[in-house]
Amino acid sequence: MSDKKKKPQKLKARLPRGFVDRSAEDIRASEAMIAKIAEVYERYGFDPVETPMFEYTDALGKFLPDSDRPNEGVFSLTDDDDQWMSLRYDLTAPLARHVAENFNEIQMPYRTYRAGWVFRNEKPGPGRFRQFMQFDADTVGAPGVQADAEMCMMLADVMEAVGIKRGDYVVRVNNRKVLDGVMEAIGLGGDENSGRRLGVLRALDKLDRLGSEEVSKLLGSGRQDESGDWMEGLKLSKLQLDGLGWLITCQAAFTSGKGVEEFSRLERDIVDRDGFVGIDYSLNKERLDHSEDEGEDYSINSVLMLMNILMAFEIFPVFDGGKIIGANKKSGELSEEEKKLTKSVFETTALLSMVQQAGFNEDRVKFDLTCVRGLEYYTGPVYECELTFPVVNEKGQEVVFGSVAGGGRYDGLVSRFRGEPVPATGFSIGVSRLMTALKNLGKLDASVSVAPVLVTVMDGEAMGEYQRFTQQLREGGIRAEMYQGNWKKFGNQLKYADRRGCPVAVIQGSDERANGKIQIKDLIEGRKQADAIASNEEWRETRPGQFEIDAGDLVSEVKRLLAEQAGGDA
Amino acid sequence: MSDKKKKPQKLKARLPRGFVDRSAEDIRASEAMIAKIAEVYERYGFDPVETPMFEYTDALGKFLPDSDRPNEGVFSLTDDDDQWMSLRYDLTAPLARHVAENFNEIQMPYRTYRAGWVFRNEKPGPGRFRQFMQFDADTVGAPGVQADAEMCMMLADVMEAVGIKRGDYVVRVNNRKVLDGVMEAIGLGGDENSGRRLGVLRALDKLDRLGSEEVSKLLGSGRQDESGDWMEGLKLSKLQLDGLGWLITCQAAFTSGKGVEEFSRLERDIVDRDGFVGIDYSLNKERLDHSEDEGEDYSINSVLMLMNILMAFEIFPVFDGGKIIGANKKSGELSEEEKKLTKSVFETTALLSMVQQAGFNEDRVKFDLTCVRGLEYYTGPVYECELTFPVVNEKGQEVVFGSVAGGGRYDGLVSRFRGEPVPATGFSIGVSRLMTALKNLGKLDASVSVAPVLVTVMDGEAMGEYQRFTQQLREGGIRAEMYQGNWKKFGNQLKYADRRGCPVAVIQGSDERANGKIQIKDLIEGRKQADAIASNEEWRETRPGQFEIDAGDLVSEVKRLLAEQAGGDA
Repeated sequence: MSDKKKKPQKLKARLPRGFVDRSAEDIRASEAMIAKIAEVYERYGFDPVETPMFEYTDALGKFLPDSDRPNEGVFSLTDDDDQWMSLRYDLTAPLARHVAENFNEIQMPYRTYRAGWVFRNEKPGPGRFRQFMQFDADTVGAPGVQADAEMCMMLADVMEAVGIKRGDYVVRVNNRKVLDGVMEAIGLGGDENSGRRLGVLRALDKLDRLGSEEVSKLLGSGRQDESGDWMEGLKLSKLQLDGLGWLITCQAAFTSGKGVEEFSRLERDIVDRDGFVGIDYSLNKERLDHSEDEGEDYSINSVLMLMNILMAFEIFPVFDGGKIIGANKKSGELSEEEKKLTKSVFETTALLSMVQQAGFNEDRVKFDLTCVRGLEYYTGPVYECELTFPVVNEKGQEVVFGSVAGGGRYDGLVSRFRGEPVPATGFSIGVSRLMTALKNLGKLDASVSVAPVLVTVMDGEAMGEYQRFTQQLREGGIRAEMYQGNWKKFGNQLKYADRRGCPVAVIQGSDERANGKIQIKDLIEGRKQADAIASNEEWRETRPGQFEIDAGDLVSEVKRLLAEQAGGDA
Repeated sequence: MSDKKKKPQKLKARLPRGFVDRSAEDIRASEAMIAKIAEVYERYGFDPVETPMFEYTDALGKFLPDSDRPNEGVFSLTDDDDQWMSLRYDLTAPLARHVAENFNEIQMPYRTYRAGWVFRNEKPGPGRFRQFMQFDADTVGAPGVQADAEMCMMLADVMEAVGIKRGDYVVRVNNRKVLDGVMEAIGLGGDENSGRRLGVLRALDKLDRLGSEEVSKLLGSGRQDESGDWMEGLKLSKLQLDGLGWLITCQAAFTSGKGVEEFSRLERDIVDRDGFVGIDYSLNKERLDHSEDEGEDYSINSVLMLMNILMAFEIFPVFDGGKIIGANKKSGELSEEEKKLTKSVFETTALLSMVQQAGFNEDRVKFDLTCVRGLEYYTGPVYECELTFPVVNEKGQEVVFGSVAGGGRYDGLVSRFRGEPVPATGFSIGVSRLMTALKNLGKLDASVSVAPVLVTVMDGEAMGEYQRFTQQLREGGIRAEMYQGNWKKFGNQLKYADRRGCPVAVIQGSDERANGKIQIKDLIEGRKQADAIASNEEWRETRPGQFEIDAGDLVSEVKRLLAEQAGGDA
């Protein structure tokens, strides 16, 4: 039979590059994780909403980073009416389209979540796929930073819900406007400076890895990298370098974990400065003292970091009773750029303060100047959840696990369709990346299903009877299957049960059938002895680790055995 | 601000044709339904396995019906290495690729299930989408009809698990080989007759609607349709018409529900025929008598129907002790075609008998000659789950709801890659179609989530405090959100709570805050009175349906109120 059907030419079975199949373990673990995340979203008052895989290409917009490939990083094709359609590259752009299309029916603020596949037409690499799952939450129609604050809180709660303990994650918050404000304040605003701005952002992004000294070189004349190659610097002016240098010193202190003492020193510098007006040193001092105690730090590091950003430009915040009420400057009035920077800093301080009041301290949500999200559509606060526990990378180096989720405010995305501002904020969780993290922590919940009981086939004539046994077990709530392969070699059936991890086998030969009996085999007990048995005949003689029951007791006996196995072994 | 950002040209927000967004109700109902189906699959010993959306176009193959459009009914594009990729049009072809690619690692028989989106590049219409969800189960490496039998059983169990009661569904079984055998036996075998074969299948498919007389005309000289147009007939020979005519009479009797009496008459005809050899009339007679009793019919109709197929060609089955052991013919030896037909009939009888022995009677699984699955890759048994309750169609006519799932044996699909036979059988459930059915029956499980408690904002300064209240509620297991829109008009907050269906509002003005108090409003109780209130001030004076609590009792008081509402109202 196999000769007859053999064909000389056959198709090669292969997955397209950059795509993968998902195993039972992956699917079960991922579904368990997604359910836990959804529970947090639901508890926060979010409802599910989903969009299809396709959008018109113009509706998606071009917001992907590194879209230097011909297809702009997305998979696109023309519909039969010649309109271009693309597979979504994230879940945010389609949500914006959904909101704009249903604007009059939607009750704002619109709090929704969705898990779904997204597609990137990029060069695949290790751990880098062209189809992957994101799990997003967004609030549309919420203009205030309280909505961004809530997102940061929810991200932190999600991490703990999936089993990542406090201290192993941190939600880092920044604000696009703060960065833009800094850039404008040092004269790097405007379209003409977009290249240099990107250079500064990329340099700041390397603070973790290179340290402040090397990053300063990148901003200045240049540096020699690890391989000995010369990296040309950005050649910033002395004034620009001074402003950024101060930030870099602060950020380095912050990242090194020596924030409190370092900021304390920096703050003394500020207080000593000529022109200092409003900073309430005593208040901060008191908080600094508290910051050593757990849960009492009031995010002093984050707030000081933000204050330092202003002070780098000699803008001094004015305090009243612990609240920032304004800012002034030794050298006269604040310029428009400086006012904008000040406003964005205050906005960020407000966000952090709300998060703290809701019970999320700096060990969970903190400011980080180097948090720069890749997507271009963000307009205000940006946030990212980083896992801080160490893992070994492909080069054998110990590194922190890194980002598993991120997002921010995108007030312009819905407006593209509406011609009026529609504020929105939200984040994406990278599902596979978070799964990998949980795997690393041994927290992956994959063992949700036990293998089925196997009803073996000893006699082709009695197939209907075996089906009935199987069905009885199922109706008794027991996972069960009848052997569906070639049953004539009984050894094959046992090998199958073994590889599948079946806990119990149900066996009935013609003798047992005539007497209304069934043989039950405890496979966990008898697994070792089974491999040696090849034929139905041999089986009938030896019968390792098995016992006989009345056919009528099938369900109750199998139930009892499974409970026994679970109790003794699980 | 809104003037400043207004742009003259704006994008139109619109979904691509044939695609839809999914609402919270749809998603929740669909997930609840999918979970119930998955539970049945799991109980039957199936494990999840998933493939990505894309496959290489050649790996998918061309098995779609009606693929008369340029793109063959699928969405395709070229990868950057010029290989054609397509979005999957079903979940079966990708499974075949997955099995072939991992053949050596997979333990056969391989029992798996998967829910996923599939895509058809077809003209969209009402209720006909270009992205839709299927939920499949398949067994690969199982050559016997016992595997097909199990699929039919599982389909029936799935229907009851999602809430469709016995009698409102039926799994109809047929066999491609039976149909092919009939065609060959009447001389319509071979490639040269493929057009006429299709014509016969289409005619048989109309038996339900047109009745036997009109279908006979379609097979013969032709018929005038409802609009008066002349439909040319297939012009079959007298001999061919006799063979099919017999089938049609049987099928009509079968469909009309008058199977037992009609078959009884037909059977007498057979017994009276010259050349009758083996049929065990007494046995069947006894079963016929039993068939009136519930649960005892032994699918006599289905089996008689199958016997009649043979008898139409004067092939007489030989019985021994109630079992079919062979067949013979008055006119001499059986031809090769007749042997094949006989074998396929016996195979189908065996399938039905197993299903019955496992406890699934003809009210759940039955033979139906008109069950012809559209996809081209089926090679043996085919099965379809039809919902039999009446609905009103778009023309206002009462019709049965129809098919929600179907599948069959596809022994050739994996072989395309392997060059050796790999038997497989499985089915697809149309998720949206089954959802629609449940909606019709009022069985849709959509109310799994209550709207959140709304923490209102009375005072911008206290935003952090409101966040904290919200967080306390969440930590107490209560679904809660802080109002995220423009909070300055309190009426807006109440309207929001109303439209969202919030059960409880939490309110704290500056007075309450000073005294450590919180106002709790029972919105279900006070919903009617609230609409009239416009300002925060008016609210403070009237406060309809609300009461004051100590801030420390927030969680316990809200819990109590929610329990009260659920008890009194749900």
